Parts: sequence; C-alpha cells; structure tokens
Amino acid sequence: MRIGQHEKLVMIGDSITDCGRARPVGEGLFDAIGKGYVGVVDALLTSTYPELGIRVVNMGSSGNTVRDLNNRWQTDVHDLKPDWLSIMIGTNDVWRQFDSPTNKESHVYLEEYEATLEALVAATLPKLKGLVLLTPFYIEPNPNDAMRAQMDRYGAAVKRIAAKYDTLFVDTQEAFNRVLEHLYSGTIAWDRVHPNQTGHAVIARAFLQAIGYEYDKGL
Amino acid sequence: MRIGQHEKLVMIGDSITDCGRARPVGEGLFDAIGKGYVGVVDALLTSTYPELGIRVVNMGSSGNTVRDLNNRWQTDVHDLKPDWLSIMIGTNDVWRQFDSPTNKESHVYLEEYEATLEALVAATLPKLKGLVLLTPFYIEPNPNDAMRAQMDRYGAAVKRIAAKYDTLFVDTQEAFNRVLEHLYSGTIAWDRVHPNQTGHAVIARAFLQAIGYEYDKGL
Amino acid sequence: MRIGQHEKLVMIGDSITDCGRARPVGEGLFDAIGKGYVGVVDALLTSTYPELGIRVVNMGSSGNTVRDLNNRWQTDVHDLKPDWLSIMIGTNDVWRQFDSPTNKESHVYLEEYEATLEALVAATLPKLKGLVLLTPFYIEPNPNDAMRAQMDRYGAAVKRIAAKYDTLFVDTQEAFNRVLEHLYSGTIAWDRVHPNQTGHAVIARAFLQAIGYEYDKGL
Amino acid sequence: MRIGQHEKLVMIGDSITDCGRARPVGEGLFDAIGKGYVGVVDALLTSTYPELGIRVVNMGSSGNTVRDLNNRWQTDVHDLKPDWLSIMIGTNDVWRQFDSPTNKESHVYLEEYEATLEALVAATLPKLKGLVLLTPFYIEPNPNDAMRAQMDRYGAAVKRIAAKYDTLFVDTQEAFNRVLEHLYSGTIAWDRVHPNQTGHAVIARAFLQAIGYEYDKGL
Amino acid sequence: MRIGQHEKLVMIGDSITDCGRARPVGEGLFDAIGKGYVGVVDALLTSTYPELGIRVVNMGSSGNTVRDLNNRWQTDVHDLKPDWLSIMIGTNDVWRQFDSPTNKESHVYLEEYEATLEALVAATLPKLKGLVLLTPFYIEPNPNDAMRAQMDRYGAAVKRIAAKYDTLFVDTQEAFNRVLEHLYSGTIAWDRVHPNQTGHAVIARAFLQAIGYEYDKGL
Amino acid sequence: MRIGQHEKLVMIGDSITDCGRARPVGEGLFDAIGKGYVGVVDALLTSTYPELGIRVVNMGSSGNTVRDLNNRWQTDVHDLKPDWLSIMIGTNDVWRQFDSPTNKESHVYLEEYEATLEALVAATLPKLKGLVLLTPFYIEPNPNDAMRAQMDRYGAAVKRIAAKYDTLFVDTQEAFNRVLEHLYSGTIAWDRVHPNQTGHAVIARAFLQAIGYEYDKGL
Amino acid sequence: MRIGQHEKLVMIGDSITDCGRARPVGEGLFDAIGKGYVGVVDALLTSTYPELGIRVVNMGSSGNTVRDLNNRWQTDVHDLKPDWLSIMIGTNDVWRQFDSPTNKESHVYLEEYEATLEALVAATLPKLKGLVLLTPFYIEPNPNDAMRAQMDRYGAAVKRIAAKYDTLFVDTQEAFNRVLEHLYSGTIAWDRVHPNQTGHAVIARAFLQAIGYEYDKGL
Amino acid sequence: MRIGQHEKLVMIGDSITDCGRARPVGEGLFDAIGKGYVGVVDALLTSTYPELGIRVVNMGSSGNTVRDLNNRWQTDVHDLKPDWLSIMIGTNDVWRQFDSPTNKESHVYLEEYEATLEALVAATLPKLKGLVLLTPFYIEPNPNDAMRAQMDRYGAAVKRIAAKYDTLFVDTQEAFNRVLEHLYSGTIAWDRVHPNQTGHAVIARAFLQAIGYEYDKGL
Repeated sequence: MRIGQHEKLVMIGDSITDCGRARPVGEGLFDAIGKGYVGVVDALLTSTYPELGIRVVNMGSSGNTVRDLNNRWQTDVHDLKPDWLSIMIGTNDVWRQFDSPTNKESHVYLEEYEATLEALVAATLPKLKGLVLLTPFYIEPNPNDAMRAQMDRYGAAVKRIAAKYDTLFVDTQEAFNRVLEHLYSGTIAWDRVHPNQTGHAVIARAFLQAIGYEYDKGL
Repeated sequence: MRIGQHEKLVMIGDSITDCGRARPVGEGLFDAIGKGYVGVVDALLTSTYPELGIRVVNMGSSGNTVRDLNNRWQTDVHDLKPDWLSIMIGTNDVWRQFDSPTNKESHVYLEEYEATLEALVAATLPKLKGLVLLTPFYIEPNPNDAMRAQMDRYGAAVKRIAAKYDTLFVDTQEAFNRVLEHLYSGTIAWDRVHPNQTGHAVIARAFLQAIGYEYDKGL
Repeated sequence: MRIGQHEKLVMIGDSITDCGRARPVGEGLFDAIGKGYVGVVDALLTSTYPELGIRVVNMGSSGNTVRDLNNRWQTDVHDLKPDWLSIMIGTNDVWRQFDSPTNKESHVYLEEYEATLEALVAATLPKLKGLVLLTPFYIEPNPNDAMRAQMDRYGAAVKRIAAKYDTLFVDTQEAFNRVLEHLYSGTIAWDRVHPNQTGHAVIARAFLQAIGYEYDKGL
Repeated sequence: MRIGQHEKLVMIGDSITDCGRARPVGEGLFDAIGKGYVGVVDALLTSTYPELGIRVVNMGSSGNTVRDLNNRWQTDVHDLKPDWLSIMIGTNDVWRQFDSPTNKESHVYLEEYEATLEALVAATLPKLKGLVLLTPFYIEPNPNDAMRAQMDRYGAAVKRIAAKYDTLFVDTQEAFNRVLEHLYSGTIAWDRVHPNQTGHAVIARAFLQAIGYEYDKGL
Repeated sequence: MRIGQHEKLVMIGDSITDCGRARPVGEGLFDAIGKGYVGVVDALLTSTYPELGIRVVNMGSSGNTVRDLNNRWQTDVHDLKPDWLSIMIGTNDVWRQFDSPTNKESHVYLEEYEATLEALVAATLPKLKGLVLLTPFYIEPNPNDAMRAQMDRYGAAVKRIAAKYDTLFVDTQEAFNRVLEHLYSGTIAWDRVHPNQTGHAVIARAFLQAIGYEYDKGL
Repeated sequence: MRIGQHEKLVMIGDSITDCGRARPVGEGLFDAIGKGYVGVVDALLTSTYPELGIRVVNMGSSGNTVRDLNNRWQTDVHDLKPDWLSIMIGTNDVWRQFDSPTNKESHVYLEEYEATLEALVAATLPKLKGLVLLTPFYIEPNPNDAMRAQMDRYGAAVKRIAAKYDTLFVDTQEAFNRVLEHLYSGTIAWDRVHPNQTGHAVIARAFLQAIGYEYDKGL
Repeated sequence: MRIGQHEKLVMIGDSITDCGRARPVGEGLFDAIGKGYVGVVDALLTSTYPELGIRVVNMGSSGNTVRDLNNRWQTDVHDLKPDWLSIMIGTNDVWRQFDSPTNKESHVYLEEYEATLEALVAATLPKLKGLVLLTPFYIEPNPNDAMRAQMDRYGAAVKRIAAKYDTLFVDTQEAFNRVLEHLYSGTIAWDRVHPNQTGHAVIARAFLQAIGYEYDKGL
Repeated sequence: MRIGQHEKLVMIGDSITDCGRARPVGEGLFDAIGKGYVGVVDALLTSTYPELGIRVVNMGSSGNTVRDLNNRWQTDVHDLKPDWLSIMIGTNDVWRQFDSPTNKESHVYLEEYEATLEALVAATLPKLKGLVLLTPFYIEPNPNDAMRAQMDRYGAAVKRIAAKYDTLFVDTQEAFNRVLEHLYSGTIAWDRVHPNQTGHAVIARAFLQAIGYEYDKGL
C-alpha cells in the first residue's frame, strides 16, 4: 500500500469523477465525495485501512476538459496541498469533436491536450508524494470506431507523459476492454461514457491495484 | 467463487439493504439495485466476473422487521425463484424497543425474531443453491450499550440458525467492530444504523469474502 | 400523396414514437401528438396539405416491445378505427438483450418478435386503407456491432412481413446509415437509440417519402 | 442550396424564434436550439445535408421588439460572427399596441421599427454571406382586422428593406394565408401568434424554400 | 333585486365559469367560488346586500360542453337544490370544431346543443324560483369570422330557449360587442375566449343587470 | 366620472393593495395588476368606460408602512408620472404594535404616520390632477377593540390631511362598518385585515363612488 | 401526578390538536405527534417523568366538528384502547356559523353539539382511567363579540358535561382570558383561532395543571 | 424571575438553537423564533409572564462552532443590543473531530474553544444585565464514549468561564444525564445531537430554572 498514514489524495477530472460531489470542495459528510469511482475508492480504502486515516478529496467537475482543469488548477489542486494526486481527463476534449462537430470552439485537439496536461504534471509533481495518471476511456470495444480511435490517441498521450515523468499509470481503457469481452457496452453505459456502478468499480479496481491496495487485509 | 454462471442472487433486508432500490423488484437499469452494499456487491461481482453473468436482485424494504419479511416472503422471495439468497434483518426489530419504548406493538422481541427467521430459512433452504445469513449490527463499539447488547443477542440468534442449517454466515457486527477500533462510530453513521459508503463497503467486503470472491482476478 | 381527405393515420411504437404524447390517446391541442417524428409528420402533412384534413394519432408508449403492442392492440389500434396505420417496434425487444443480459424475462427474441408482429399485421390489414411498416434501427454504423447486427435481423423480419403482406415499407436503418456516412452517431443520439430533432427528421423524411408526400406543394 | 459547407447561420427574433433555446447562446446538445421553426430548419438541413456541416444558432428572445434586438446586437449577432443571418421581428412591436393600449412606452411604432431594422441590416450586411429577412405575421385571415392590418404594414416595411438591400425575403404572412384558406386560425394558434408544430412547419418550409433547400435530396 | 333573502344561486358552465373553484362543490372559504365572473357576482351581491345572505355556488367545469353538463346534472344541479340557476355553456361545443377540426367526436353540433340545453331547462325550471340563461360568446368583433358566426348561431339557440320558457336572458356577446367598439379583442383575451378581469366584469355586469342589482345601494 | 380620457391612475399601499401585482411595476398582461381591489377597480372602469382608456397601475407592496412608502416614493410614484394617485396606508403601522408588541422598531406611531403621510401629499399634490386618500381599516365592529380604536385614530389623521389639502377622501372603515352590521367579520377576513373578494368589493365600491363612477353606463 | 406508569393518553380534537400529526395514528418518530399543544404536553411529560413511560397519541384532525369526532370514534378512540382521553372540540362547530353563514349544512348548533359530546363521553368513560374535557376557545377578549359569546355557550356545555360525569375539566377560554389582559389577541393568533407557540403553551400549561404535573420535579 | 419587564434576551448557538429561525434576525411572526428550545422558552415566558413583555431573539446558526460565533459577533450580538444573552456552543467544535477525523481544518480544539469563548464573554458581559452560559451536550450516557468524554471537557471549559465571570450557568449534559437514566438516547435523538421536542424541553426546563422561572404562576 503506497499511500501512507494521514496522507491526502486529491482526485480531479470530469463528470466521471464528479458524480455529484460537494462544492467548492468534494469531501465530508453526506456523500460529499460523490457516488462514482472516487466514492468507491474512498470507501474501500477507509474500510480496509481505517488505521491509516487517508483523506480523499474529489475535485471532478462535469463537462471539464483539460483546458478547464488548467483554469482552476491553482484553487482546486495547489491550494488543497495534496500529498497524492490523480488525474483522469480527456473525455470531453474528444467527445465534443463527435457530438458537436460544428462547434469548433468546444474541441480540444490532441496537441493542446497533451501540452496542457504535461504542463500541469510538470508543475505539480515536485510538490507531491505520488501522482496517478489515468487514461480517459470510451466504453466501445471496436478500436476502429472513430471516437474510440481518437480516445486511444489521447490515452497514448497520457501514457507518454506518465512514462516521461515516471508516475503511476492506470490504463482504464484496457480495464474496460477486459470487461467488454464478456459484456456489451450498453450494460455499463448507454452513452458509452458515464458508467453505472459496475463501470465505476472497473475504474476503482484498476486505480486501487495501481496504488498497492490489498483487498483481503483484515478479513 | 461459490456463485456459478447465470445464477440468481436475491438479497433481502431492511433500509440498509433497500437504499433506494426500484419497486416492485430491485434490479435493472438506472441504479434499480440501490446505492448500498447490494449495489457494491453487484458492481464488484460484475466487474470482476463479467463472464459469469450473475443476476443480483435487491429486495430490501425500509423499516422492515422479520415480521414484515414473513408477510412478503411469497412474492418477494419464492416467486422470484432465487438460486442464492441473503438475509440481513433485525435492526428495526431491536431499534423500536429503544427509540419508541412506549409503542410496544412495534417491537419484535427475540423469541418471535428467532422463530420467524428460522421458519423462513427452513421453508426456503431446500429450494436454494446457497443461503447467506448476515447478522444485524449496531455501529457502536461499547458492548455494554443497551441497544448494542440487545443487537448482539439477535446476532447470536442468527448465528445459531446458520449453524443449525449449515448456511454461510456473515458476522457484520464483527466486521464493524474491527473498523471501530480505529474510527469513531459517527464517521460511518450519525445514527449508528444507516452507514455511509464506507460502512456499506464493510458489509460488502464481509459478504464477498463469505462467497469466495477473489478481488485480484483479472487485474 | 397516398393518404386521402379526412383519413385517419394511427402511428404506434415505443419511446421513439411516444415522445411525450397525451394519454390515453395521443392527439389534440398542446402537443398531445408528442415532439418526435410523429409530430414532424403531422406538422408537415397539415402545413402542406391543409385541405386534406388528415387526422394523425400517436399511440407510441415508452419501453414497449412487440409483446406490449400485442397486449394493448384492441384498445389502442382496433378501437380507434384507423384508415392508415404505421408500426415501428423492436428497439426494446433487442436492447434488453444487450443492456440487461441477466434479465431474460425482458428479452423478446426474434422468433416471438416476428410471429407476434405478423399476427398483428394479418389481423389488422383487412380493416385498413394502408399500412406502413418501419424497421427498428440502431444509430451505429458498424454492422458487426453485436446489437446493430441483432437489430438488423429484426429489421429483416419486418421486411419479410412487409413483402409477404405487400405493405408500404420504410427502412429506417438504411435512412440513418446514409446520414452516418457523414455524422458520428453521437451527433444524433448519445445512446444510439433516442434521436434528437435531426434524427426524428431522418425518420419523418423516410416515412413521408413512402406515402408520396410532395414537399414543394404550394410553395 | 445557398448555404455552403461549414457556414454558420444565426437566426434572431422573438418568442416565435426562441422556443426554449439555451442561454446565453442557443446551440448544442439537448435541444439547445429550441423546439420551434429554428429546430425544424436545423433538423431538416442536418438530416438532408449531413455532409455540409452547417452550424445553426438560435438567438431568439421571448418578448423582444426591434428595440430589444438593437440593444443586444453586438453580443448576440456581431460577436457570434455569422456567415448567414435571419431576422424575424415585429410581433411584439405591434401586439403591445393592441393588448396593452394604455401602456404607450411598450409600443414600437412603424417609423421607429423600420428605421431600427434598416440600421441593423445596413450595419451587418457587409459582414455576411447571406441575410434572410422574414416578415412578422398574425395568424388571422381577415385583412381588415385591426391588428392584422397593422402587422401587414410592418411586413411591408420588411419587404421594402429587403428590396433596398437586395436580401433574401420570406413573406411568412403570405405562407400562413395559404394555410388559412383551409384551416381556422385557432387550429394553429389560440392566440394567433404562437404557432403549434404545424405553424412552425409553415415558417420553416417558407424559409427553406428561400435558401434553396431540396427536400428530396438523398431519398 | 329579484333574488330574495337566503336564496341559493347555482351558476354552472365551462372554464369561463370555473376559474379555479373548489371541488366537488364551489363554495366556501379561500376563494372556493373561483376568481372569475362568479366571484365578482358573489362579491358585489354580498357587499351590496349583506342583509340578504344570498348563497352563491360555482359549478363550472373547464372544458365542458352541454353534453358534459347533461352527464353531471343530477349531482351538480338537482342535488344542490338551487332556488336560482344560471347556465352559460357552448364555448367548447363550438371551439373544438375550429381548433380540432379532424376530431369529430369532440364536436357538439347545433342540433344536439339546442336539444340538450332545452331538455335540461325543461326538467329543471319547475323546481326553480328563477333561471338565467347566458349566451356563449366569442371576443371577436367581426361577425363574419367563421367561429364568431357559429357562436352566434349557438347564442341564438339560447335566446330561443329563453323566450320559449320565459326565463331571464343575458346576451353576453352583445355585452362584449359594446366593449369591442373601443378595445381590441386582445386587450381582454389573447385567445378571444378566456377573459381577463375586465372581461369577467363585462359578464358580471350583464348578469347583475338582469337580476335587478342596484350598484348604488348603501353608498 | 372624474378621471378623464387616457389619464393614468397609480394606486399605492400595502398588502391589501398589492395582492400579487407584478414587479417592478404593477400593470400589464396576466393579472399584473393584482387580484385585489385595484384589479376590481380597473376591471369595472375598463368594462364600463372602454372609450376612456384609463391606465391603472398597482404599486402596493406587502408589509409596507408609511415609512416604506416614503422610502420608495421617488421611483414608485414620481417617476411614474401619474395623473391620479390613491393612497391607502396604515394597516401595518398599527398592526405591528398589536401583533409584535416587543418589537418597537417595527411600530410607526401616530405622529410619525401623520407627518410622513402629509409630507408625501404636500410634495405630490401639485403634480396631480386628482388625489384620493383612503383610510386604513380593521374589519372589527367593536370600536372599543384596542386595535380598532388605534386604527380609527390613524383614519382620523387621513381625514384631517384630506380636509387640509382638499383631496378626495374614502372612509373605508365606514364602508366596512355598514357591511359588518349584517355580516360577522370572519365572513370577510379571518385575520380582520386581508379581505376576501367580498371585502375587496367593499373597498372598490367606495373608491369608485368617490371618483364618480356610474355603474349603469352602457347597460 | 395523576397519569400512571405506562399509561396511554389519547388526545382528540380539531386543527388546534392536529398540528401536522402523522396518519393514521399520531405517535412515533419525527414529530408524528404534531407541533402543537399535544407535542408540548408530551415533551414536558417525558422530560419531567422519563421513568413513567407515558404514551401520548395525537388524534386531532383539522376542520373537525363534534359530528366528525362521532363518525371516527370507533377507530380513532375505542380501537386505540386509551387509559386516558382528552377532548377539545367545538371551534369549527361555531366558526362555520360565523365565517360561512349561508352554508347551513356546515353548522353544528348547540343542541347537537352538547348531545353528541355527551353521548361520546357516556360511552367511553367506563373504559377509561381518566378523562379530560377542554372547552373550545376564541382568542377574543370581548365577551360581547358575537362569536366569542357563542363559543362561551359551547364552553358552558362542556362544563355541564364535565360536572355531570365528574371528569377533569380545563377551561381554556379562561386560560386565554388571563393572558389577554396583557396581550392583544393578534399577538397569539391573527385569526383568533390557531395559536402560535405561546398560545399552545397556554393550553398545555392549563392541561398539565389539571393532571397534576409538577414542573420542578427533578430540577 | 430574573429577567425584567421589556428586557431583550438574545440566544445564540448552533443548529440546536437555530431550528429554522428567520434570517437575518430570528424574531417575529410565523415561528421566526424557530421550533427548538428557544421557541419553548419564549412560549413559556410569554404565556406565564404576559405582563413582562420580554423580547426573545434567536440567533442560532446551523453548523456553527465558536469560531463562527466570533466571526459574526458584532452584527449578531452587539448590534442587537441585548439586555440578556445566552450562549450554547461547542457541539460542532467537537463533532467534526469524530465524524470528519481527516479534515483537520474543521476541528476546533479545546484551547481555541475556551480562549475564543472567554474572549466573547469578556467583551460582552459589561454591556449585559445577565448572561447565561450553557454547556454543549452529547446525548450519550456512557462517559467513556470518546466523543462524550471530549464534550465533557468542553463543558468543563464553559463551567470554568462561568465561574470566573460569575455568570448564570446551565449544565445541559447533566440535565440530559438525568433523563438518560430512564430513556435510551435514541428516544431523544437518533444522532445523539439533534433533540426531538422532548430533548428541547430538557434544555428549556434547565434554562428556565436558571433564570428563576415559576411554572405555576397564574395557574
């Protein structure tokens, strides 16, 4: 288990991270942490390692692209002084290209995406005990689907950054691919983007594996 | 992993099981399975064993005592033809004795509780591939607290029935006790009854352990 | 233009037909006809042929399969005494197989689908001046996608029935395929099933073409 | 077809244009374009010419007169940099004279109407690839009705401006008149102003005819 | 003043009478009498003749035709044992012919209208101290408007019945015509049917005049 | 009839005047004028004198005392440039002394009341064609009731001001007293302050009498 | 203190008793007992005598007269098997005579009131350990007020019955009279009927005094 | 009785004080004073001492710690110029340490608590006729419970301050302890913090005792 006692983990992203978290900061009573994978991660960490007192904060915001993360990075990451940080972004950067093709202003193309994400990583890594980069994903098994193929290009960019900066890395697309061998995409998400509880468990398990979580501890 | 391919698991109980599940039957799209431990169990089973196609159905109902389970057993258990069944009941049987002491009609005392639960088990077990009995719990670390002590007596009754009929058994109180060594009860539930996501993870982990779930599979 | 003066057209189907139509009968003031392709068909017919006084009635119901149509056929078709009838059904018959794979009771497999639809056609055709059969569709361009492939099988069944009974036939899948050469599926429907206004226009244009509508009349 | 590939069409007006469009800009997912004639125009253009990628934006605002258009012209027209623009205004300029006769401040009389509209046209036309001016209308067949007669005077002003600046011109009153030969006004609009779907189809067909739309393309 | 001390006046009709009256009987506290002309009549009678203790009951129902009145006549008129009765019906009998021309079942044509109304009058008059028949109206000044002309035919039928049975008679159309010489119809009702407070005052004044009300009494 | 053609009457006061009027200015469509005596006055004036085109504006505000009127007098009276003005204020000035006796800051005692009201009258009268001062009232027949007696003192102040400045004067208390000879106060207002429609008719009749309204005109 | 350990007190009446109590039986969690004097009585009894375990049940129903009590007496009193019973009824019996003078059916006159109440007392007293009769009241200090005078007659009837059957008796009017020597009625209730918390304390104190409550116990 | 005629009592605290009081100042009509112990205190004071005209104001705010009181002390205490002041604070200062252990910023530890509270007392006492300090409480009978033990430490700090400044002092924990000898904590508050009406009566009785309230006065 890589996260240590009393350390603080901030998890940032888009609507898949957000899932109804509290404003302005997603932590505290009454499911302030949201009902998605962040909630699952927090619940499994706290129930398995109650003695560690890990502090998990959800800073996801629906609709965000990496451009939006950049705009709110000071208040929503630096000011919170995390020990650990996870970033999963890119869904909306890609999706708008496919559901709003005429609205070019809403598209964040690959070059801008990778450059912005790398700048955020470079500026933040020195202050962290650990950084986890998650790829964006598209719950579509066909790698030739136009939007899946584009999402894969964004995921590859995340992988390049993780390698360059030697961060922890979670390939969420790969995690979904393994499930999609047995389940049709619509069982997890009608729109292939917003997962149900099963899909959030896919993300949470992949994340927890990356940070060395031991499920059986204390059972 | 004890539950087999395409088998159906019905989970019945009170509000801790219910958690907003759909009516009349708690399965299907849009979180019909509820947002509590049943949802966590379903999500982890499906994401870990997508090839098994296990069917989980939530039949919890808020406020129920074992008397209420008995009244709806035909429609809510037998008619659904489960392969596997889990039962977690007793919270309200005990709680009304402590929050509504003058309202005697609302109390289900130990003798009635144990006899009714045993009758349900005896009538249903022959039709099942597996039965999991979970104790009720009270998220209170002090075993001398009056309500905790009473809840422990009900838990012991569940344990007796499980032993007598040789069913799977989950001691949820014990699972919470381990967490309460490190966390104050109010971190999990202000009322010591309705858990937050962490508390539901405690139940889910204990349940999954009992049925032979392997967290690391496929990771 | 095949529909004559003062003739009555009933359009039946599932949520794609329904689109908020009034109950128990979908006609009248205040958009009682719904805001989907039925509304577009009615609006274009009435604005282009005001002298014909064609009466359009929407009898779609969200979530319906052909099994549900069969159950409400007497009140919702025969009792309304239509001159013309359109049927577009099959989406949910197929979709439940893919979004709710463990819930077998909710699946309507091909044999039942084709037999039921044919029986409805056979029983109703003698009372009609015209019948239009529309295939169900899935707004997915990849014919090898599992659900698209299954939907195509259901569409082929509709085509067989149309041929056997010599009814008007609309291949909605083909109509969407032409649009999908230029637009990603997500531009029309995030879930590939419930179209936005553009998608309803695709259906309406294909339907109107089949009944001999002349757009330029009176302009 | 006059509008070219990837061109942007802004449609501005009052409540007949608005129809629930999104704020501050009426384009995008979830019927942001509104449910009136603008939505019909966009749906027919996109379904018929998917390869053109025309971008339609709805900037109608309920209750607006030409005085209101003038006040928001910079942000709502110039700043959006349209290639094409359509304007349909005047209903409220006239209506307030007839439903609120004592409230003189709310009336926009003909001279102010024509001067303001012409100034907007003159200032904007040089930046456009195409401009479509639509008359306001009143769904009343009697040309001697006091409000219809006044609306006709405002429509004549639009016609004068269109002729002077050689823009495309749509006589919506004439389009409605043809329908009113067969339908009573109340079939389209109880208040003779806000059309139902049939009435919006009347406007949309007239507009599409003016820009060279070909209904049968691709069918 | 024709209505005597402690006498009961029931006023029946459609939405113009209803105006939000209480169910099942429209009398009592909290504006149970509705906010239309019935409320105005009651308020002026009670404030001017507080010593008479006249009991006014509103039995209007939105959407009603004379066919609907006939269906509820026993419970809504006979059972209430009125001393005085007023009837104003016919708006919807006519309107549906003009706003829903294809929906023939919703039309009540003149012959049925007159026969039904006469039968109700004949059966009820012997039990009453007084009966007031009001014509339906259409707030449209042009007597050649198709719906106005039809409404006039229904008003003429009311006049025939009033003459034949020698009841009090109120020509509401004539009352509105006098106002329409000075005001455009839209100042009173956008849809020319449902009046604002001014329009309800027109009806109330005509009704009160017919029963001998003295405005200046006690001032 | 004292109010002339096209003249504007502003009526200001407290909740008895307000009755749900529109903000910021109480005139226009959709009962913007409120549903109390101002609405009755406007409806009777407009239906009886449609040729005069009198403009009535409701500027009542719930909870207001004369202190509040003073604070908003510039925007809510002067800026509206009325020809005629009516003022009915004082209910809350008195009521707070009796329902909130410990909250002295909320009381407006007689000296402040009279001085403030007189100052408003003196500053405004020169700009007006006519001014109508109405007393406040308390629907309580017992002149020895403590609050009624106090209200009478405030009414006497209004009378003094009306006499000194020779304005029109309406003694609303006297108007209610005549009705209270026959009706118990609770028939008009449970709280003896906020009248039902009958009570608003009492005020409206007294006001109309003062301005020379002729009920029978045109009947 | 007259009520003994584990005894059950049912309190029945109208809206002054009801105050939002739960249905069908007014006891239990979440203020099921209502927020009026019954809640105050229960709270003071339970906090002062926690060792007695007195069970208080609120069976008030808004709008009830003694006629309504009679209709629901079996289910709402006898079936609940109270040890103690309190009855406070009569407000609506009287009030309707004064706020709805023309609606004679809603009036319960004195003879019927007294006879019905006496019959209920006679039929129930033998089954009780104690009965408390409370007069109705009217928060009006003037004994010559018409409604107050009538309410006093009903209170006198309660007093006669209490004397005849030797029950406990609470003169709530007298209790309010003492307060009204110092406070204006409107400080307690704008409508002189529905008390605020102060008024409910007046009733509760008078009731508690009658049953021998000792405030200072345990302090 | 220590509070004198026309004196003003401000009661400040957290959610236990707040209970839905009005903003910005908690006094006035319509339960502006809130439905908790402040409402009970006010109701018993006013009904027992109507001649004193004591003015009670509720300034509780949900979620507040002593840190929050300090921030709003000028506007919410000094500016209101109280004669008497009561303070009950500390629940949230302690609770966050137990329900949000990782969120250190939300904890107010004992040293800060005592210093802040003392500073507020010292700065305010000279302006007051009387000050009442109430301990915070936790409705948990086990003094070894971790949160109860901590709350007792905060209560002891209040006691120290009361002694040092010679103020009135109310030991609410002691008052609850006496009740908890007979009732389980859950009968008063599921979360052991927010009392039901019985719990508010416990606080109110202890407070009233401290200020010399005589329950039997006037009975």
